[in-house]
Amino acid sequence: MTVEGLPMTVPAADLPARVRIHEVGARDGLQNERATVPTQVKAEFIRRLADAGLTTIEATSFVHPRWVPQLADAEELFPLVRDLPVALPVLVPNERGLDRALALGAGRIAVFASATESFAKANLNRTVDEALAMFDPVVARAKATGVHVRGYLSMCFGDPWEGAVPIPQVVRVCRALIDLGCDELSLGDTIGVATPGQVTALLTALGEARIPTAALGVHFHDTYGQALANTLTALRHGVTTVDASAGGLGGCPYAKSATGNLATEDLVWMLRGLGIDTGVDLGRLVATSAWMAARLGRPSPSRTVRALSHKDLQDPEEQ
Amino acid sequence: MTVEGLPMTVPAADLPARVRIHEVGARDGLQNERATVPTQVKAEFIRRLADAGLTTIEATSFVHPRWVPQLADAEELFPLVRDLPVALPVLVPNERGLDRALALGAGRIAVFASATESFAKANLNRTVDEALAMFDPVVARAKATGVHVRGYLSMCFGDPWEGAVPIPQVVRVCRALIDLGCDELSLGDTIGVATPGQVTALLTALGEARIPTAALGVHFHDTYGQALANTLTALRHGVTTVDASAGGLGGCPYAKSATGNLATEDLVWMLRGLGIDTGVDLGRLVATSAWMAARLGRPSPSRTVRALSHKDLQDPEEQ
Repeated sequence: MTVEGLPMTVPAADLPARVRIHEVGARDGLQNERATVPTQVKAEFIRRLADAGLTTIEATSFVHPRWVPQLADAEELFPLVRDLPVALPVLVPNERGLDRALALGAGRIAVFASATESFAKANLNRTVDEALAMFDPVVARAKATGVHVRGYLSMCFGDPWEGAVPIPQVVRVCRALIDLGCDELSLGDTIGVATPGQVTALLTALGEARIPTAALGVHFHDTYGQALANTLTALRHGVTTVDASAGGLGGCPYAKSATGNLATEDLVWMLRGLGIDTGVDLGRLVATSAWMAARLGRPSPSRTVRALSHKDLQDPEEQ
Repeated sequence: MTVEGLPMTVPAADLPARVRIHEVGARDGLQNERATVPTQVKAEFIRRLADAGLTTIEATSFVHPRWVPQLADAEELFPLVRDLPVALPVLVPNERGLDRALALGAGRIAVFASATESFAKANLNRTVDEALAMFDPVVARAKATGVHVRGYLSMCFGDPWEGAVPIPQVVRVCRALIDLGCDELSLGDTIGVATPGQVTALLTALGEARIPTAALGVHFHDTYGQALANTLTALRHGVTTVDASAGGLGGCPYAKSATGNLATEDLVWMLRGLGIDTGVDLGRLVATSAWMAARLGRPSPSRTVRALSHKDLQDPEEQ
């Protein structure tokens, strides 16, 4: 249902005028989808996302293909999109991955740490500190060549093995990532369990630790339906970088029955209603996600995509 | 995935200590489901909801069966549940419906008005004011016999025909319902388009019109994924009555592809994380919704139900 004038735009006090969406569908989304998507389709997906107005589109991962077979075509894909006029960060696990990314001319990389020992062990087969030590030369070399570095931090709000995650533990790893040289952090609720009081508490603690809010992004999963309420809470705290996945692509492999990333469309609907500028054309974005859902052979988990996926928003070529 | 200690409980400032959930799954939910559920299953559903700790459970509707065939068994159902130790409001469209409800001993009724002329016409075949006039004797007679009256107000945040709905128009109908004698109002986002700034603006306007916040409930639909962010916003404004539907049952018949009511479980997850008391046992509630989803032959749209629907939460009798 698309109705002229909806959502009504009614700004709220104490919210930022502009939000930058860090689009993760092509990387975090596709890496967690069962189907492997052809390289040309991925490239087309990224082009369409850029065309919809997204300005930061995480493109792929240089993790070893053994661990992420869905993104094994990073070397083929990146040259197909690198000339797009948008930021195209790529995930890099270690120096070997950095070499591959730099060889292709990547201007932005992202490393990924864990707030908990259990997930560091499961995901990186290292302790938290061993992982940080591994990233040290990666970040240093990237910075030395003028490459922008994002640091992902998983399990900031709860861990499937450890349960509650103490805030000082999260603050410590954030501080360490900033001290390594990360330009920006992405605070991940990897299993989607966070609620708004926790978001406020962590952001307050990070402020007290003198980590600038401008360097913080939030990355919420919608496993328990909390992602947008948590995002709103982070915006109230001054955060202006929000991770989201077009069409809600992807999910956490540890919660198979559940949904994954916050859908970019659901986020854009809220921000549009709040009069917060994102530069995104919602109709084009919905059409792109509907197109990708058709490629994946299943409906989009994004509620907004499902509500708006009418003929008038489909890509005419696909009808 | 159920993990001990999650969600972490971290209260937020400026939120109420307690929220009353007005559970609408058995009425608003089932009336919008395609399948017609046997009367005994409905009664069992309501009993299980009460057993899970819900204290206000809208039981059924005395609208003419021609309009709501799914609830045509109101006369058979109500006596099966009326002795439960919970509030069991029933929907009543007119004096004939009131007579039927009173004859069965209903202690709480709900009438339903529209904030827009288009929906009043579509839903009641009357103008807004004609509908209010129709409710006048219904509310007066109910109050005279000591029956509690809730007034639903549809399309408070957007209308599928009219688009934006001016706030003064919503305030006027709210005022009229209070003046008729309604004890409480439920502000409905029938098509799920609201965003948080709009919620703040309406609640502020209602406060300025001296409608007490204690008399207000909010009723958000999750069509665009906004329901929980909007609910959080209403809580910040002091609202303590929130409508939700167990398992996310039901939907708006005008947005068939979209999801409907806010799922009670997603709400309870957030409130539990915020340390806000609801009296609800989340495990029992999830088991109840999983049981009902099996009766309806389809998965629950509630993200929390899907995430938590593991064997350990299923009703042992159903395994």
